[in-house]
Amino acid sequence: MKRLKLGMVGGGPGAFIGGVHRIATRMDNRFELVAGALSSHPEDAISSAKALGIASDRAYTSYQQMAEQEGKLNDGIDAVAIVTPNFLHYPVAKSFLHAGISVICDKPMTCTLEEALSLEQIAKDSGCLFILTHNYSAYPLVRQAKQMISDGQLGKLRLIQVEYAQDWLSTATELEGNKQAEWRSDPKRNGPGGCLGDIATHAFHLASFMSGLKLAQVSADLNTFVSGRKLDDNVNAMLRFEDNVKGLLWASQVAPGNENGLRIRIYGEKAGIEWEQENPNHLLFSPLGEATQIITRAGNAYQGSADLVRTPGGHPEGYLEGFANIYFEVADLITANLTGESATQLQSTSLLPGTKDGVQGLRFIEAVIDSSTQDGKWVSVEPLS
Amino acid sequence: MKRLKLGMVGGGPGAFIGGVHRIATRMDNRFELVAGALSSHPEDAISSAKALGIASDRAYTSYQQMAEQEGKLNDGIDAVAIVTPNFLHYPVAKSFLHAGISVICDKPMTCTLEEALSLEQIAKDSGCLFILTHNYSAYPLVRQAKQMISDGQLGKLRLIQVEYAQDWLSTATELEGNKQAEWRSDPKRNGPGGCLGDIATHAFHLASFMSGLKLAQVSADLNTFVSGRKLDDNVNAMLRFEDNVKGLLWASQVAPGNENGLRIRIYGEKAGIEWEQENPNHLLFSPLGEATQIITRAGNAYQGSADLVRTPGGHPEGYLEGFANIYFEVADLITANLTGESATQLQSTSLLPGTKDGVQGLRFIEAVIDSSTQDGKWVSVEPLS
Amino acid sequence: MKRLKLGMVGGGPGAFIGGVHRIATRMDNRFELVAGALSSHPEDAISSAKALGIASDRAYTSYQQMAEQEGKLNDGIDAVAIVTPNFLHYPVAKSFLHAGISVICDKPMTCTLEEALSLEQIAKDSGCLFILTHNYSAYPLVRQAKQMISDGQLGKLRLIQVEYAQDWLSTATELEGNKQAEWRSDPKRNGPGGCLGDIATHAFHLASFMSGLKLAQVSADLNTFVSGRKLDDNVNAMLRFEDNVKGLLWASQVAPGNENGLRIRIYGEKAGIEWEQENPNHLLFSPLGEATQIITRAGNAYQGSADLVRTPGGHPEGYLEGFANIYFEVADLITANLTGESATQLQSTSLLPGTKDGVQGLRFIEAVIDSSTQDGKWVSVEPLS
Amino acid sequence: MKRLKLGMVGGGPGAFIGGVHRIATRMDNRFELVAGALSSHPEDAISSAKALGIASDRAYTSYQQMAEQEGKLNDGIDAVAIVTPNFLHYPVAKSFLHAGISVICDKPMTCTLEEALSLEQIAKDSGCLFILTHNYSAYPLVRQAKQMISDGQLGKLRLIQVEYAQDWLSTATELEGNKQAEWRSDPKRNGPGGCLGDIATHAFHLASFMSGLKLAQVSADLNTFVSGRKLDDNVNAMLRFEDNVKGLLWASQVAPGNENGLRIRIYGEKAGIEWEQENPNHLLFSPLGEATQIITRAGNAYQGSADLVRTPGGHPEGYLEGFANIYFEVADLITANLTGESATQLQSTSLLPGTKDGVQGLRFIEAVIDSSTQDGKWVSVEPLS
Repeated sequence: MKRLKLGMVGGGPGAFIGGVHRIATRMDNRFELVAGALSSHPEDAISSAKALGIASDRAYTSYQQMAEQEGKLNDGIDAVAIVTPNFLHYPVAKSFLHAGISVICDKPMTCTLEEALSLEQIAKDSGCLFILTHNYSAYPLVRQAKQMISDGQLGKLRLIQVEYAQDWLSTATELEGNKQAEWRSDPKRNGPGGCLGDIATHAFHLASFMSGLKLAQVSADLNTFVSGRKLDDNVNAMLRFEDNVKGLLWASQVAPGNENGLRIRIYGEKAGIEWEQENPNHLLFSPLGEATQIITRAGNAYQGSADLVRTPGGHPEGYLEGFANIYFEVADLITANLTGESATQLQSTSLLPGTKDGVQGLRFIEAVIDSSTQDGKWVSVEPLS
Repeated sequence: MKRLKLGMVGGGPGAFIGGVHRIATRMDNRFELVAGALSSHPEDAISSAKALGIASDRAYTSYQQMAEQEGKLNDGIDAVAIVTPNFLHYPVAKSFLHAGISVICDKPMTCTLEEALSLEQIAKDSGCLFILTHNYSAYPLVRQAKQMISDGQLGKLRLIQVEYAQDWLSTATELEGNKQAEWRSDPKRNGPGGCLGDIATHAFHLASFMSGLKLAQVSADLNTFVSGRKLDDNVNAMLRFEDNVKGLLWASQVAPGNENGLRIRIYGEKAGIEWEQENPNHLLFSPLGEATQIITRAGNAYQGSADLVRTPGGHPEGYLEGFANIYFEVADLITANLTGESATQLQSTSLLPGTKDGVQGLRFIEAVIDSSTQDGKWVSVEPLS
Repeated sequence: MKRLKLGMVGGGPGAFIGGVHRIATRMDNRFELVAGALSSHPEDAISSAKALGIASDRAYTSYQQMAEQEGKLNDGIDAVAIVTPNFLHYPVAKSFLHAGISVICDKPMTCTLEEALSLEQIAKDSGCLFILTHNYSAYPLVRQAKQMISDGQLGKLRLIQVEYAQDWLSTATELEGNKQAEWRSDPKRNGPGGCLGDIATHAFHLASFMSGLKLAQVSADLNTFVSGRKLDDNVNAMLRFEDNVKGLLWASQVAPGNENGLRIRIYGEKAGIEWEQENPNHLLFSPLGEATQIITRAGNAYQGSADLVRTPGGHPEGYLEGFANIYFEVADLITANLTGESATQLQSTSLLPGTKDGVQGLRFIEAVIDSSTQDGKWVSVEPLS
Repeated sequence: MKRLKLGMVGGGPGAFIGGVHRIATRMDNRFELVAGALSSHPEDAISSAKALGIASDRAYTSYQQMAEQEGKLNDGIDAVAIVTPNFLHYPVAKSFLHAGISVICDKPMTCTLEEALSLEQIAKDSGCLFILTHNYSAYPLVRQAKQMISDGQLGKLRLIQVEYAQDWLSTATELEGNKQAEWRSDPKRNGPGGCLGDIATHAFHLASFMSGLKLAQVSADLNTFVSGRKLDDNVNAMLRFEDNVKGLLWASQVAPGNENGLRIRIYGEKAGIEWEQENPNHLLFSPLGEATQIITRAGNAYQGSADLVRTPGGHPEGYLEGFANIYFEVADLITANLTGESATQLQSTSLLPGTKDGVQGLRFIEAVIDSSTQDGKWVSVEPLS
């Protein structure tokens, strides 16, 4: 199968997620990294590109130039991965979509809802793909849980408890030279939500994705515990989904002992389900009145897509494999698109997160901030269709 | 050591918690059950008493009569255990306190805050003990966690996440002849809080007990998921404790796969701590930047009272042993009281829950209902001293 | 129900298991401790008896005298609990059986196979009960596992992996004044097996009990790791049960991090099962090709006797409750016996361990020592019938 | 950094491990797959190569031809990955080493000790690298455990308990068209050990690698439980390492509920350690008399090489990442070798498994079979130096 050509914006020295994207693209050998504007510092951009084996004539020092030039090349990139700090997502994505190049973008989609809605329209008009890397939605057992819920195995849903706890910002790391912490705690580069934008959005997306439900209202209490920090570092929220489903959401970056504790539990009339990102190869399924079952990623009880699984049961897969599933499916979509199908149509039936999820994420961020500012008043997230 | 004489009100046929109390009293052999008004049905009261080896002249058919008569006997009971449905806690406790008999009472203390405040005064005036069986506070590792927090091992506290999930009311069990479910879902016998009064109060007490903090405000969303049910079966709440400590509380009786899932996590500037009732012999302690430690009930890292532990490490103790710790300590208090110390003074330095905890519990119940009725408005729980 | 009268030999100051027995007898209120020869030191025997509320005329300083006198009393004890160091099990049990008094005895039954066989005959001739406190066989989920295997839910068995690991003898504790360690490491008081007699026998019994299989042959490697220790502190062994079932047994008292790690896994053609004593309220059941199930002690998947369970699911029971189940069932047997049925007949259909298990235990001990002495030669444990 | 050129022998349609190797080589982008003899069926070899993007002139139908030709090319492969059934390891490796090409070979090294010793000499003479993919030795926390032991954190070692349990051969899968099962149960293609060669060798290697100890003697009981199977499917063994360290080894492919249950526990005078492959991001460390610590792959307690870790703590890595660590380190070795250092010297100080480990593995296999044939007689594995 022919490898697709990929470009990357961001992901230079000191970055974390750029490297993750690159490993994810290589895992299934569907992409080849051939172009990049890897840093806003020209020298870093050039040297990083060289280190990654990118030809010098495609080692760009400006994303605008890259979009323009790649859009014109006969063998230009099929897609660009945007792995910059959040505030650049919007202008960079816009440039590439305008150049007719599909976009794979880190979350959150943009810094404001306004930008997100604008980008949604731009993507639609472009006929290109816009994929948001809510990578946790591509773990095999997350997909299985979504399918089980959609199949009615939990019955009518009642409750969603979702949490995402970390501890790496328990002290003022951003003042001590941690590059990741620096831009994440700078409202200008990160957008208005701290922990909220960084990880609560993942929790929100996972809850929506797995349940298939829209969040109707939120009541929130945002806090900043670390002295001198400019953005929130803890999110407490109560949730009201459509169909009278209720929930709680907790996201924190100041909870010692939690490394990357994304965990979701969903309960319906007939059963409950539980999944933890740190132990992603197990899914607990508890039919009411029966023993809890431990469903494994590749065991006989796994009903999901074999494409999402690379190794037999008991050979654990993890974060990188989940991320790679995003790229694997993007490759399928782009390949289909190249042979004539419309990207926007394709994406509408795909399980990959896109502009709609991005807009929802921004609506969530703005509603949480709005509610917290109003001392926890219930705020509508989006009109239920 | 001389065994104390115990009476019991409630706990006849079909009851659950009465049997638990009786086992707890026998565990350390500090009490002898010598009197009882075990049922509101006279025949059941008599036959139950006989089955338990209570002499026929102390097998009462009315708690009023029992209080009156036992109060007059030279060798009358030293204490009475009240294990009735909630609405009887107040009148029964009142009768025995008036008769000069110490009371060990199930939670919640009463059905209303007004009753609780009244009973607090009555207890104070009586010079008798009033102990509330918030039994989870007597697990050895809960005590250890409290001590570690009080010693500053977590640093300044920031977050409390507490939850108590069950599944036994996922269907309308109360309409199908389950006696426990029946009275618990009847506002007249149970009081105004369903899941709220039954188990959210335990979660609230545990959070307050372990952290040593008072709850300042609550914002709540109460729900009744099971059709036809008269009381709430799910509690979602955001918490604001004194000293800028924030939290979430979730209590549910409709969460399939949860048997008795009381779990608490507390995070401070320096460390986090986690304890689960279903695995009570382990306590997780996570100092920031160090490996998480698994502290065991009777291992070398246990710094708690040896009195609370009956077996070596690895020989698991459970619910009944935790409950027995309450009775063990009550026995110590009563014995000290009999030799001249004042009950109210004694109780003020004891870790056993008493009238203050009971009043707080009712304040919590009323504040949660108040907040939920006002669509999640933050409601003050009690004035902070 | 009338309480039975119990006597106790051993269990004075500094003892561990005597206190466990006493709690176990009180848990279900079926026994009353009325007589005792609690220590070989007369003063300790008297003071301990007094502290336990035993009348002075039944506080004996010699077990021989106690057996003789209690055997003659009209209201003499119905049973005696023997909780002495191992070397006294034989003479004490003999005395009480001769006096027509049923015996509840700690394991191992005796110090030698010869004594065990002799005691088996004495018990048979006496018409009294002889119960061995292999307490782990009375956990509800151990019983459930036994039943599931007996019902064929695992299919034809193939493998048994059993282990019992502790760490409390990792150093020469017996030389530092630990009374428990002292007699256990003294061949004269403990018998020839150290870790072997103390805990490997429990593992062996559990494997035999749960599987329903007799051990045919053993190949063993005994070791003493702690310098100066007189008995083994680690047992490695390969097992061959009847019906071509194979296994491994590991018992150790020098494995840091293990408190009381008794764990068993049994595999058949159709399913596997796993149980750990430190987490006794869960049983893992893995039907081949299906998800593993977590069966709980009191959940809907529990098919065992409700008599063995005192609290609802999620209210954990532990070591003391398992021990109490032994006494609960002994009480049933004695009560039935008192009303005319023959003890030996009763015991043959009971699941309680008795003389047969005791003799098997000694055969196991002697075979392991024999094999280890012969450098791991396979040694027959007992003739298969 | 320049990518190395890799060839592959085996790994065509229906293979499992070939795909794993290919993902592992891509993970860190250090290799490019440019040549292959992917199947013994010429058509499959050609079509598989094409599907993998291998140029047609380097899509070989014979490994002999491939070795010869690649050895002559100026830009011939830097290394070959051998992922064939076991019986081909020897001749294939020989061919490539003779052609001066480094070898990365699946375990076991060969089918007989004789072949292994021969290959060891051939590799030495060739000046090329020979790496055996005992991939479990490259998990970051396995390396950490090895380092902790080597640093003396466990004190003098006493015990090693290692097990590797699977269930996928619980029925006669090899007769039902499972290609993996077919060759693994055919003595001609697999060698004389079934479960023994397939997974017990991994357990043996892990025990030796982590402890740093040589196995002195083994006493074994091999069994074949599935009717009609030609090779063993369960290994029970007792182990005696140098320095009086004792152990048990269990490997099974007929243990329902076990997917890939490789687990090791090592105990010394001062501490114990435990690691499970299915939960590879946690390492339990139990200093005697202190709380057990949960060391994570990327947390603050991790002291291992950052090169082995691609994601922050809590972002789980798994089987593929462990495997990729082998290729990452191989790339470093080859690159160093290309710049003038001697491969055999390099490998002697590397932690990567090589010919020595391969020879040890065969010695282990032969000793186990020998012991089992002699009814468990202790058999020496290798002379201790």
